[in-house]
Amino acid sequence: MALSIRPYKGARDFYPEDMYLRNYIFGKWREVCERFGYEPYDGPILEPIELFASKTSDEIVNEQTYNFTDRGGREVVMRPEMTPTVSRMVAARRQELAYPLRLYSIVNCFRYERPQKGRLREFWQLNVDLFGVEGAEADVEVIQLADTIMKAFGAQRSTYEIRISSKKLINAIFDELSLSEDERKVLLLLIDKKEKIELIEWEQLFYEAIDKEKAERLIAYLKEEKAPEEVQKVLDKLSDSGISNVSFSRYLSRGFQYYTDIVFEVFDKNPENNRSLFGGGRYDGLIGQMGVEPLPTVGFGMGDVTLIEYLKSNNLVPNLKTKTDIILVPVGDVYEKIQKLASDLRQMGVNVAADFSNRKIDKQIKAAAKQGVVYTLFVGKNELADEQYTLKNLLTGHEEKHSLQRIVSIIKDYRKK
Amino acid sequence: MALSIRPYKGARDFYPEDMYLRNYIFGKWREVCERFGYEPYDGPILEPIELFASKTSDEIVNEQTYNFTDRGGREVVMRPEMTPTVSRMVAARRQELAYPLRLYSIVNCFRYERPQKGRLREFWQLNVDLFGVEGAEADVEVIQLADTIMKAFGAQRSTYEIRISSKKLINAIFDELSLSEDERKVLLLLIDKKEKIELIEWEQLFYEAIDKEKAERLIAYLKEEKAPEEVQKVLDKLSDSGISNVSFSRYLSRGFQYYTDIVFEVFDKNPENNRSLFGGGRYDGLIGQMGVEPLPTVGFGMGDVTLIEYLKSNNLVPNLKTKTDIILVPVGDVYEKIQKLASDLRQMGVNVAADFSNRKIDKQIKAAAKQGVVYTLFVGKNELADEQYTLKNLLTGHEEKHSLQRIVSIIKDYRKK
Repeated sequence: MALSIRPYKGARDFYPEDMYLRNYIFGKWREVCERFGYEPYDGPILEPIELFASKTSDEIVNEQTYNFTDRGGREVVMRPEMTPTVSRMVAARRQELAYPLRLYSIVNCFRYERPQKGRLREFWQLNVDLFGVEGAEADVEVIQLADTIMKAFGAQRSTYEIRISSKKLINAIFDELSLSEDERKVLLLLIDKKEKIELIEWEQLFYEAIDKEKAERLIAYLKEEKAPEEVQKVLDKLSDSGISNVSFSRYLSRGFQYYTDIVFEVFDKNPENNRSLFGGGRYDGLIGQMGVEPLPTVGFGMGDVTLIEYLKSNNLVPNLKTKTDIILVPVGDVYEKIQKLASDLRQMGVNVAADFSNRKIDKQIKAAAKQGVVYTLFVGKNELADEQYTLKNLLTGHEEKHSLQRIVSIIKDYRKK
Repeated sequence: MALSIRPYKGARDFYPEDMYLRNYIFGKWREVCERFGYEPYDGPILEPIELFASKTSDEIVNEQTYNFTDRGGREVVMRPEMTPTVSRMVAARRQELAYPLRLYSIVNCFRYERPQKGRLREFWQLNVDLFGVEGAEADVEVIQLADTIMKAFGAQRSTYEIRISSKKLINAIFDELSLSEDERKVLLLLIDKKEKIELIEWEQLFYEAIDKEKAERLIAYLKEEKAPEEVQKVLDKLSDSGISNVSFSRYLSRGFQYYTDIVFEVFDKNPENNRSLFGGGRYDGLIGQMGVEPLPTVGFGMGDVTLIEYLKSNNLVPNLKTKTDIILVPVGDVYEKIQKLASDLRQMGVNVAADFSNRKIDKQIKAAAKQGVVYTLFVGKNELADEQYTLKNLLTGHEEKHSLQRIVSIIKDYRKK
């Protein structure tokens, strides 16, 4: 029986055209992070399951992990997110590392979810974390960095919104209402659903979850629009730096259990999407849980799947092309010579392939065009003798004979466009 | 109980200094592949187990895979290598893709092995494949590309050797001796061990594995030094192109079952290593097994773990450094201004971080030096008023006041070094 040739459900095959977009995204991510002085890191895909339990959300750990027992009897999980790993790595070198420590990674993560628009089982994620700064400067910097990434992709302020809250607020009202752990979990999920449900129906669910009086007080609390001082401080600093699309939102809960203070999310305002693009926050307690001195930390994770949806719906995917500059088309038996020519061109910095398929010339040209390559060069005995080669631009159809030097300069000019 | 802070056995934590080396290696890989007109691709880490069975080696599939059942009851494996995935992807678009098709990927793979020098459970691998060329031009090109990578890392020809053989040869002698499948598997493993065992002991093992007469004939065959015509053709073309460290080796077996013809390996001649660095070959049959028209293919895979060992033992690891150009050191309460300054510098293309730790200035300088950053800039009220800032070079200890423009040009000059 023939094998299945489809990718694993919820994972993607990246063909060259998909990689052009992926490399574009990763490139922007890298560029902005390095501009802010962040250093690269990476960790293993497999981690012990205990690293995630009672840190990442229960939903992820209990229902969405890819976990299994390895051949040596270890219970392992394919990382569903990166925060526990980077925390473990920093904890392992708690004393040696220099602070403030700025780290970023671009890694793939795995969650067993129902694949849908903007959500897959294997996705790539940028992770940004700033360790060792207690003050609001850290929250502000990380949100600025997130905003700079949006701008780097050409995003207009009108298309997205940065929402800020603090985990302390919701925890304080939960404490005040003496809610149980289970009630808190249910309510956090419910609060998070506000955008997806009609207001009346949404409020009704609070009355189903807890006592009438508690529900009333919680709803009243959520409707309060004024930001408390600590959140306002962050909002003001962000506004001062020119970020105008930022606001306080009590509804913001962020699922991860390790958040302790300021949390934020970047929200896609397109009515078709109307969803959180990505988010993060402060998690001052996590590193201390690993047996070392605690360390204040702020970070966020930004996935590629939702970002690609956002870029597409805002027409922000640029016209990306192959890096292959030219394909050499042999005319007749010129193998040795074409090898030499390809090698010379490569030494001059040109990305060059030769067609060794032995097919008719028009088929070779068609194949080059299909791959998105703009130039072909015809190389036959006469051309080699004259050292003048016919360069064809497959976009315009224009053909002209040139010396090798001239060809290299035409190609390099085109590349700059 | 505190969590374990060590990485999963056989996997690595990549701290920034490890990432500098990894990015250097990936960068060279990418550069050479693109120079030869190869296009990027990637696939899922999880694949159905059937994709590897009876293709990859039995040892890998039966003893070394990370396989498990997912939450939906699918038997999956974390890819131990990339060839079956790329073959599946090409098969899925067999008719649409343009040939010759040149593809490369840089991906992580997983094998449950005993971790040792040059071998880990999670490793990164460059994969290079050329689809659609029947002739020896394809074998030659792929080996040239492998050689160009070695040269790009600064490798001297005296430190490595390219060994070439053909799977057809060993299969022909196996057929001639009417050996069973099981005998063939044992003998292939044995042939592969030649470098690791004393010659007399090694020959003795053949007599234990098969009949005396067959063993004698097989040993005589293996000792034959002359290359058959088809292999000689590849050797000649490679020599003509300036690759002098290439030779025929009947002992070369390459474990993967899908190889059909020319195989090669790059061998590390350092007596301390004395091992195969990486290798590949022609596998014309694999895509045809996926229910589509067969397609001639040549490729290789090159792992990062053995390569790093090679680079280290040949002193080829360059002096790599952080991309952070400068750290701003606030003197007094200048937060708003330092934010603005950082933002201006970033817009001028400088990679800049600011120290918001509120520690003493000498501590801030020490932290910058520990992170390998060369420049710090002192920013206090006086400096902001004068628009002249004290730039300190942490390597030389030199301090001098400059305008922002001048600072940017000093930093960019340093970066070019």
